[in-house]
Amino acid sequence: MRRRNFIGSLAAGSLSAAPIPGIDATVMQHHLTALSEFGRPPGGTFQSGVTRIGYSDADIAARKFVTKLMENAGAKVRVDAAGNIFAERPGLEPSLPAVLFGSHIDSVPNGGNFDGDLGSIASIQVLRVLQENRLQTRHPLTAVIWACEEASFAGASLNGSRAAAGQMLPGELNHISGGLVKSEAVRRIGGDPSRIEKARLQSGAYHAYVELHIEQGGTLARDEVPIGVVDGIVAIDRYEAIVTGFANHAGTTPMADRQDALMAAAELALAVRETVTGEAGKQVGTVGHMEVSPNAANVIPGEVRMTIELRDLSSAKLERLIEKIKARAISIAKETRTGIAITKRAHNESATAATEVQSAIESAASKLRLNTRHLPSGAGHDAQMMATLMPMGMIFVPSARGISHSPKEFTAWQDCAKGANVLFETVLTLAR
Amino acid sequence: MRRRNFIGSLAAGSLSAAPIPGIDATVMQHHLTALSEFGRPPGGTFQSGVTRIGYSDADIAARKFVTKLMENAGAKVRVDAAGNIFAERPGLEPSLPAVLFGSHIDSVPNGGNFDGDLGSIASIQVLRVLQENRLQTRHPLTAVIWACEEASFAGASLNGSRAAAGQMLPGELNHISGGLVKSEAVRRIGGDPSRIEKARLQSGAYHAYVELHIEQGGTLARDEVPIGVVDGIVAIDRYEAIVTGFANHAGTTPMADRQDALMAAAELALAVRETVTGEAGKQVGTVGHMEVSPNAANVIPGEVRMTIELRDLSSAKLERLIEKIKARAISIAKETRTGIAITKRAHNESATAATEVQSAIESAASKLRLNTRHLPSGAGHDAQMMATLMPMGMIFVPSARGISHSPKEFTAWQDCAKGANVLFETVLTLAR
Repeated sequence: MRRRNFIGSLAAGSLSAAPIPGIDATVMQHHLTALSEFGRPPGGTFQSGVTRIGYSDADIAARKFVTKLMENAGAKVRVDAAGNIFAERPGLEPSLPAVLFGSHIDSVPNGGNFDGDLGSIASIQVLRVLQENRLQTRHPLTAVIWACEEASFAGASLNGSRAAAGQMLPGELNHISGGLVKSEAVRRIGGDPSRIEKARLQSGAYHAYVELHIEQGGTLARDEVPIGVVDGIVAIDRYEAIVTGFANHAGTTPMADRQDALMAAAELALAVRETVTGEAGKQVGTVGHMEVSPNAANVIPGEVRMTIELRDLSSAKLERLIEKIKARAISIAKETRTGIAITKRAHNESATAATEVQSAIESAASKLRLNTRHLPSGAGHDAQMMATLMPMGMIFVPSARGISHSPKEFTAWQDCAKGANVLFETVLTLAR
Repeated sequence: MRRRNFIGSLAAGSLSAAPIPGIDATVMQHHLTALSEFGRPPGGTFQSGVTRIGYSDADIAARKFVTKLMENAGAKVRVDAAGNIFAERPGLEPSLPAVLFGSHIDSVPNGGNFDGDLGSIASIQVLRVLQENRLQTRHPLTAVIWACEEASFAGASLNGSRAAAGQMLPGELNHISGGLVKSEAVRRIGGDPSRIEKARLQSGAYHAYVELHIEQGGTLARDEVPIGVVDGIVAIDRYEAIVTGFANHAGTTPMADRQDALMAAAELALAVRETVTGEAGKQVGTVGHMEVSPNAANVIPGEVRMTIELRDLSSAKLERLIEKIKARAISIAKETRTGIAITKRAHNESATAATEVQSAIESAASKLRLNTRHLPSGAGHDAQMMATLMPMGMIFVPSARGISHSPKEFTAWQDCAKGANVLFETVLTLAR
């Protein structure tokens, strides 16, 4: 390879067998920096991060920017009824299903410039490189920017991709967030809430889905592995535990007479950690939310409400873990003379990455002489919705120090380019 | 004894050696019920409890009610510059210092009808019985109703008795609570904020202070002991612990990489309990307040703030306990890769009950054939301020199920009468 960022070759089935240009780190930096200006805090820099909530003015302005990039890449752009932006490029055989790839450009409040943006910009670069080099693929190609991926609208996430997968909730268009009804929010970005069901993708319309994303965890960065091949997106079980003790005077109630809900809650929180780390595997468990009542320095806590969130690729493992935690809760409640009720509040299905897409990513990385590691995605992604419709795969690149959903989120430009080129080669392999 | 509630005899030094009437359970019930109407929730009953915040309209109305009772008992009533109400009865030897006894009639929000009210009504009954029977004591007697004992005004407690002990805080009269400046609050109840220092009691002006109060804990009720002789009022040390971890994604951060502030906080809370119960004694320790940040189910907690409150008669023991807790915190912080900072936020001195007042209470109970038990007061009382000026003692009576600061607070009428009669006999002994 002559140049680090102009690597790769057109896969068999393409029109040319000569080496083709890849995607340059400088180009990635240029476009990611340009995109970062939409939703940047006033007076801030790239390092200040971004607040680009889905459906907001900043989101709408950024959508115009990426639409222009798509058009400049020669794609035919259309917006579906849910506000998802599709950039279509014909294939040599128009009857074949298109290869779909993309990400999102909305952010969490006070988020970073890589989560979603990287995969979105890289997908457009795939189209641009093909266009500039007048290259063609057998299958048609479609780059997509999903609407409002983050849990920004009344707490719901994956808004555009859920509509595309036909998984919107009953009455969801009437949900209100920040004074805005969702139907109006969808209309603001060019969607059509009155025919939202038209956003549902037809079965067989697409050949496969690939998404490039930052890892958000720190394992690739720590071990200096440039490419992660995602095995799947974890299932999430979320529980609420309510610990009931007896609120009493902190001065006049002897230690032996207490029914202290916080002591029981502390033991339960530690039991979650012990149980989750008690067996091999990549499962995680978190007590992220805790509310103490009455929460006064001089009153023994009478009630504690806390969340228990468990994630793993295997739903069966999650069931096993919560059963162990519940058994621990029974003995904690007995010892502390409290009541503990644990109730399931939410379940997100896991999504398995298709073997053929994982293989395509591996061979692309191999061609580019980049090391890979298989890993699960602990975070949710639009890709999990696509997995319900077609073979799905995800490419991860390192996140410095594992930080995400923060202005400090960072992926080196060279790592961005490596991921973009693996996406490029993977798309070519799948569209061969 | 012919009648359960007409018991006791005038102590040596009184004018008569014949048996004298005591205080009747029916009389206690009658007056406590009448007092309970001031601040009762609209449409409520005695069981609905009371909200009679110090300086409020309900407090002012109740103060008028008890002032009338004092006047009917033949006392000369005056209000000092802090709003404390004094009911004075001359002694046979006017040059002797007066015996002081009383309590408070303000309540916490949604409080009960015994905390403070019992000792206040009983003190007035002492004057009434002496007046009705034309009995005299050597020392003058003064019953007192302290202004705003509960921590109702901008979190400050013992408002009237602190002024009487010369322990007001700098600038305290400018504190604002519920839109009311404290100086104006003091004026509302007939005090004079411009000469608040005049409320300070002169050294040697009083002979001793006795206060009758409900236990607020459950030990006397559980063991059916009618009279508690208070050894002293515990010292209180209050600390804030700030646990600093690193907030991160609950899905993408492996268990081994976490710096989970809540796990460290849970271990610290349990270490407080272990340390406090790890040595013999009546010390108590409470983690009553905990705030988790960012407090979201899907984010590993980055910071936890919690209170650690320790109480014991011995300040030295409290120092020893916090040193042990701090040592535990150091190892917890190391294991969990968090930072833990523990800072002292408040210290209340302990107050020892004077031996001579404890003896007077014991001999009074003995005379009335009532069992006694010595115990510390885990709660603060106006008596602790008086202990800085003169010999102090407290009489406790049982609280059903140890409940206080609640509409469910209850002390049987017979137990109220027993306490009132012990107060009566104790005052006679001290005023002998």
